[in-house]
Amino acid sequence: MEAEAEAEAAVAAPAGLFITLEGGDGSGKTTQSQLLTDWLEQRGRTVLRTREPGGTEVGVAIREIVLHHRGEIAPRAEALLYAADRAQHVATAVRPALARGEVVIQDRYLDSSVAYQGAGRVLDATEVRDLSLWAAEGLLPALTVLLDLDETAARGRLDAANKRFDRLEAEKSDFHRRVRAAFLALAAAEPERFLIVDAARPVAEIAALIRDRVTTLL
Amino acid sequence: MEAEAEAEAAVAAPAGLFITLEGGDGSGKTTQSQLLTDWLEQRGRTVLRTREPGGTEVGVAIREIVLHHRGEIAPRAEALLYAADRAQHVATAVRPALARGEVVIQDRYLDSSVAYQGAGRVLDATEVRDLSLWAAEGLLPALTVLLDLDETAARGRLDAANKRFDRLEAEKSDFHRRVRAAFLALAAAEPERFLIVDAARPVAEIAALIRDRVTTLL
Repeated sequence: MEAEAEAEAAVAAPAGLFITLEGGDGSGKTTQSQLLTDWLEQRGRTVLRTREPGGTEVGVAIREIVLHHRGEIAPRAEALLYAADRAQHVATAVRPALARGEVVIQDRYLDSSVAYQGAGRVLDATEVRDLSLWAAEGLLPALTVLLDLDETAARGRLDAANKRFDRLEAEKSDFHRRVRAAFLALAAAEPERFLIVDAARPVAEIAALIRDRVTTLL
Repeated sequence: MEAEAEAEAAVAAPAGLFITLEGGDGSGKTTQSQLLTDWLEQRGRTVLRTREPGGTEVGVAIREIVLHHRGEIAPRAEALLYAADRAQHVATAVRPALARGEVVIQDRYLDSSVAYQGAGRVLDATEVRDLSLWAAEGLLPALTVLLDLDETAARGRLDAANKRFDRLEAEKSDFHRRVRAAFLALAAAEPERFLIVDAARPVAEIAALIRDRVTTLL
């Protein structure tokens, strides 16, 4: 009888839901991730808000290496470090949360790896995707929100916020255009998984569009 | 004319040679690596003696994570960290040395990854090999010396040396037997690349066997 009750409780528990937010720097991922988290929590859901790289203790150490190493990091070494961070994060944070029935809202995931590495044209985008999928044991989000912003608008937002540009942000605008094109191509290839939102729209409008889509998944 | 002279000098320079030493802990890799280095240097060759993990600055940081992280490291994260170390080491140390015509003598390489991960039976050995080859952009040694020692002899040597056992060394002897079998299987699959030496033989005899084989490659 006890086993039956437990089985019933397991069935009654909400299913875990994995949502990722993608887009260039300055596209509003942090803001929308916070608004979505607040809304879900108001509806009684437990939310794990997380990010890569750096969502675990091992990930923080990896992030230190990638961002603060003074010498050259070989392109494949960098891709493997990001993949290691992903493997650790998925295995020890994301999958356990999903198993507990939580909603995981993550800032950047595999699409960022493919878009940034692919747009840099150093490594083959398919190889980077395969590496990420191996690291994550094939885990894909149920929904990926792509906050799409043209490069000029993104740069303007960052300037306005007076943020110090980091290494990636300081790359040429040509690179940003390639990243944006790569994100749009990924979204076009998997329309079921992606919700593309024009990130130049008002924050509240974007949040409503995201909530509408998430509602269909709950 | 100057270009011609440079081309001639490039042709005259010795070709780089990549040699790896493999085998369990206590099999004598360090001793044989030193003896081979001394012999080659006496013959006027420049030798890069190196190891994985930890042969580069980035590698040392990675080694710190793998060996000293207190919590759990997911198996795929660990494999990816070792692969990142390999990518950095091959790209920034091994390949440049080979391009300069040096002999690279390396303690452990891809065969260790395959043997240890494969023997642990957590990850698929073929996947680990593919990951390593991707990290190294396909670089394989011209010669791999396998210092083969049965588990009882290896344990006896380590006890005699009164070495503190690290995490891997403390694993069950059953694991060591599987690692040994995995190394022997790798050697059997690539007889051209491998020289299998009975590591229980006297040090000087082993050194002579290795020198004989290296001589044919110089």
